[in-house]
Amino acid sequence: MPEFSVRFLPEGKQVMAAEGESLFRAAARAGVLIDGSCGGQGACSRCKVIIKEGKVRLAASGNLKDDEKRRGYVLACRSFPESDLVVEVPVTGLPAGLRTVLEGGGDVCGGGQGGLGSLSPLYRKVFLSLKEPAPGDGEDDLARLSRAIRKEAGVGELRPGLDVLRGLPKTLRDAGWKVTVSLAEGIGCGCAEIAEIEPGRVGRKYFGLAVDIGTTTVVAHLVDLESGRTESMKGAYNRQSVYGEDVISRIIYAGEHKDGLEGLQKAVLDTVNGLIREMTEELNIKRVDIKAAVCAGNTAMTHLFLGIDPTYIRLEPYTPAANKIPAVRAGSIGLDIHPQAWVNCVPGVAGFVGGDIVAGVLASEMAFSEKMTLFIDVGTNGEMVLGGGEWLVACACSAGPAFEGGGIRHGLRAVSGAIEHVEVAPGSLAVKYSTVDGVPPLGICGSGLIEVVAQLYKAGVIDRGGNFVFPGRTPRIRDAGEGREFVLVWPEEPALPGGIAVSEAEIKNLLRSKAAVYAGIRSMLKKVGLPAGAIERVIIAGGFGGYINIREAVNIGLLPDIPLDRYTYIGNASVKGAAMALLSRQARQALEEIAGRVTYLDLSADNTFMDEFVAALFIPHTDLSLFPTVT
Amino acid sequence: MPEFSVRFLPEGKQVMAAEGESLFRAAARAGVLIDGSCGGQGACSRCKVIIKEGKVRLAASGNLKDDEKRRGYVLACRSFPESDLVVEVPVTGLPAGLRTVLEGGGDVCGGGQGGLGSLSPLYRKVFLSLKEPAPGDGEDDLARLSRAIRKEAGVGELRPGLDVLRGLPKTLRDAGWKVTVSLAEGIGCGCAEIAEIEPGRVGRKYFGLAVDIGTTTVVAHLVDLESGRTESMKGAYNRQSVYGEDVISRIIYAGEHKDGLEGLQKAVLDTVNGLIREMTEELNIKRVDIKAAVCAGNTAMTHLFLGIDPTYIRLEPYTPAANKIPAVRAGSIGLDIHPQAWVNCVPGVAGFVGGDIVAGVLASEMAFSEKMTLFIDVGTNGEMVLGGGEWLVACACSAGPAFEGGGIRHGLRAVSGAIEHVEVAPGSLAVKYSTVDGVPPLGICGSGLIEVVAQLYKAGVIDRGGNFVFPGRTPRIRDAGEGREFVLVWPEEPALPGGIAVSEAEIKNLLRSKAAVYAGIRSMLKKVGLPAGAIERVIIAGGFGGYINIREAVNIGLLPDIPLDRYTYIGNASVKGAAMALLSRQARQALEEIAGRVTYLDLSADNTFMDEFVAALFIPHTDLSLFPTVT
Repeated sequence: MPEFSVRFLPEGKQVMAAEGESLFRAAARAGVLIDGSCGGQGACSRCKVIIKEGKVRLAASGNLKDDEKRRGYVLACRSFPESDLVVEVPVTGLPAGLRTVLEGGGDVCGGGQGGLGSLSPLYRKVFLSLKEPAPGDGEDDLARLSRAIRKEAGVGELRPGLDVLRGLPKTLRDAGWKVTVSLAEGIGCGCAEIAEIEPGRVGRKYFGLAVDIGTTTVVAHLVDLESGRTESMKGAYNRQSVYGEDVISRIIYAGEHKDGLEGLQKAVLDTVNGLIREMTEELNIKRVDIKAAVCAGNTAMTHLFLGIDPTYIRLEPYTPAANKIPAVRAGSIGLDIHPQAWVNCVPGVAGFVGGDIVAGVLASEMAFSEKMTLFIDVGTNGEMVLGGGEWLVACACSAGPAFEGGGIRHGLRAVSGAIEHVEVAPGSLAVKYSTVDGVPPLGICGSGLIEVVAQLYKAGVIDRGGNFVFPGRTPRIRDAGEGREFVLVWPEEPALPGGIAVSEAEIKNLLRSKAAVYAGIRSMLKKVGLPAGAIERVIIAGGFGGYINIREAVNIGLLPDIPLDRYTYIGNASVKGAAMALLSRQARQALEEIAGRVTYLDLSADNTFMDEFVAALFIPHTDLSLFPTVT
Repeated sequence: MPEFSVRFLPEGKQVMAAEGESLFRAAARAGVLIDGSCGGQGACSRCKVIIKEGKVRLAASGNLKDDEKRRGYVLACRSFPESDLVVEVPVTGLPAGLRTVLEGGGDVCGGGQGGLGSLSPLYRKVFLSLKEPAPGDGEDDLARLSRAIRKEAGVGELRPGLDVLRGLPKTLRDAGWKVTVSLAEGIGCGCAEIAEIEPGRVGRKYFGLAVDIGTTTVVAHLVDLESGRTESMKGAYNRQSVYGEDVISRIIYAGEHKDGLEGLQKAVLDTVNGLIREMTEELNIKRVDIKAAVCAGNTAMTHLFLGIDPTYIRLEPYTPAANKIPAVRAGSIGLDIHPQAWVNCVPGVAGFVGGDIVAGVLASEMAFSEKMTLFIDVGTNGEMVLGGGEWLVACACSAGPAFEGGGIRHGLRAVSGAIEHVEVAPGSLAVKYSTVDGVPPLGICGSGLIEVVAQLYKAGVIDRGGNFVFPGRTPRIRDAGEGREFVLVWPEEPALPGGIAVSEAEIKNLLRSKAAVYAGIRSMLKKVGLPAGAIERVIIAGGFGGYINIREAVNIGLLPDIPLDRYTYIGNASVKGAAMALLSRQARQALEEIAGRVTYLDLSADNTFMDEFVAALFIPHTDLSLFPTVT
């Protein structure tokens, strides 16, 4: 089969592609990230690219507009090279606006030890000045060393690597009994490995990697393990997206394709390794100076990251291979840090409440608080934890892709140009909006969509069920083919041919999403027999939460109607929790404790959830007494 | 440098040797074992070979007799090839008579579980029938499996390998939840590794390797871990001998030669791997079916086996790198069993009381006995342990090579043809003797030497200090150049030209050896404030003990004068203890407990030892009241 060279602009990355390989796949292989929520199925029409040079064969053309076609747009997933190509990836498809998923990450760990107890990193170098054995002193070298380590570093059982043991006698004596040992601890392990022993006092820097492996985005922090300071943080889209947008489609892909699991594992490793490369180049350090890693992901992501079969997570009773996974050597999975470094995965609770949530709960400090707290991380899946120091209950609901801009024709993730705030004037229906980064609008993101729905309801455009009921005639409301739509941005406005509109079907989609989340919260409250008012604090985590207008979210019935000052946004709590585990033994123990203590409420096995869901499909709810402040 | 082919008879092994390489080294490389106690220094004159074809250059000729030279004998260590060669290794140099070091090995473990508690091998396969997860059952696969294992096999913490975890969900379901798991435990580790998981009930055999790594000989048992039965046992000379006969010379070699440590490690691994090959071929099993190993060696041997620097074991205060060494993977050291199998080394006590003694103490059952017991393992080094269930004290003394037939012109290990029993008729001085295997005499072994000395003393040939004092004239006593000697075997007698004689200097050598052992025992008794009569049981271990005449050993003052029925011979207790550890968790815990409980008495730092040694240089002792039954 002939192969052609394909160069992707603006990054300039080049890759050889076979005749039968779509540009979507070729881009993924080249490390060029193209937006797309259907996993290359031609369904979402988001993987638009422009062929600048060369010829492609087009399969079914997808939903491109005529003027898009005129301007040279094709769908990358439907385009196959017939010659060498130069392909431009338009700005909407680039991971330009990962700001949200990174935001706030420096707070907890940036300052060092705040809230972590004393600094006791997963990997550290400890200087020791040993007493030379005197005549009659029968203690062996390892016992002498271990005793000193225990005294200095307060660790329990010690395990020396064979390599360390082999050279131990000479190293100790050549160094005049003054040595620096490197200790590698783990999550869920009371012992420490003596990973290295060096003569004298060694001050060289060493780093730890904290990663939040999200289904959509992967965020990494590089932490100086000596100072506790986060030196760099980067994010990227999870390259697994080419295999499917959500967890379920990836699990299916892993099971149904030969080498599917391997491909998914490689994709996420490539993503993380790419971030490692960026961060180490930025800081001008070596990758082998990264000596430990903590990864927090949802259960399926953790499985895929380690190459563990995730098949049964999606089948009743949703059984993971393991929630608590022993640490593995970086070299054994191909993570591009020191090959002997231990990679720890934060333990999870269940198939749909993973280590990312446990890490988030840690970072939120709710697990040791007397305040009854609700923790919410909403993406494609909504995961919620309720409780405090005494008990914790968690659940997960399928919120659908709406909150991430998916399943919406003009939906976008919260990238540059995504409409994030919207006001619709009652009466005139004039629209004011603002976009991420203040650039001309390219689409609408989840938080923007919530405001649109809230504003349209308030303006009387839609009723409580999301139906268009505006009595007057206005060009803002037009026929979208299958039902009506509301125009937010006219075609005349800059940058986006065709304009931006939201249809009745899309609004009902969002209502289903919000109903799932609210019903999950209600189910947990019912389970513990408490009213929403008992919630003293709501902590919103994740990229979505950064832009959300809490008032409007309450207005549409997504979040419970309690005083707004009880709401806090914590940013990417998952990577924060992972970074805390890098730095603190107390944090590592807490992760285990939390994972063990959370009671998982399986909503699919819970009849009340379906009732709650149906009741929550309205704005704000069928039971208005639950939303006293919403008029 | 030109290279020549050298073929060794009778085995027929062939090797290429450079002009400057001695036949001794070439033989070692070829895996041909030639006797020799000086490590190829030309001093012991034991590495005699016959050049059948070709030419060699001879360095200083060593102590060969004229008739030996006439018959084509050369010393292998002084001979360098000048052409292709055919070299015959005479029968005395072959490891023909390893009977003693193997003897009795089957007793403890051969019958299976005797004394070991229930069978709980280091590695085992356990069949499990799991309950399939029901709807609403949130337990993950690993937790479900672990719970079943804990119930069935009574192990503590479980650690799955990543490979096991990766395929776990599919394996469990494909197998209808009926699986066989392989569990690998360790010495000094409360946890078990889930090494493998297989569908259904798997009955295939799996084996464990128990090895006694002696300075001179290496003995291995292959144990069926399911039945507990020892299926094969083999012994060989430690191929490290070419680098030096005793521990000290090997430690020096390791330190002073580039790649010396690597060479020594390879030599002992080659030895053990050779035994593994022999045993697996005999049983027609695969080497990868050996799933666990326990090695018991003295501290230096254990260090060399793992490639750990042993340098400081021989320098005051005789500090090992480690007495307690974590298990390593077979593949990481090149032991030719399943590469993922754990190799456990029995923990030691001090630089000169190693895991072999701890294993021996375990096998002797003295550590949990109410009887005050003395455990003696005498080779080049004498190691002794005194005590019982309440306390244990140990010491080591340098007995010198005499007990192993070293440092004696006609000395031999206890191989075929070695004189082991001797009677000298008072008056006529007529000699009656018997040899190992009943073949014509080729030399005298340690136990034979003890009897010679005892008999010569009884016959009035020597006095209490070992001086020749026989008043009459007899051809049995002749001038040996430097002092006199007693002829045991006339030159006319079969097989050995020049006959076999023992000189005054050699007798005094033996007296120093026996004095060291007895002084060690006395030092321990003094330390605990008990008389010899308090010893209720003496257990003699090791190859030497198999032939020893206890009565005569008491007569010369080597062993304490207590009722002879308190003496027992246990054979190779080290390999027995190692095999017990293969089979029983209780035994493994006991090994740790013993190693931790033994108080080491450093004789070199103990003034009373020197006094005791000097007092013990006489037959039987300066203090005759210590030997009431010796007349």
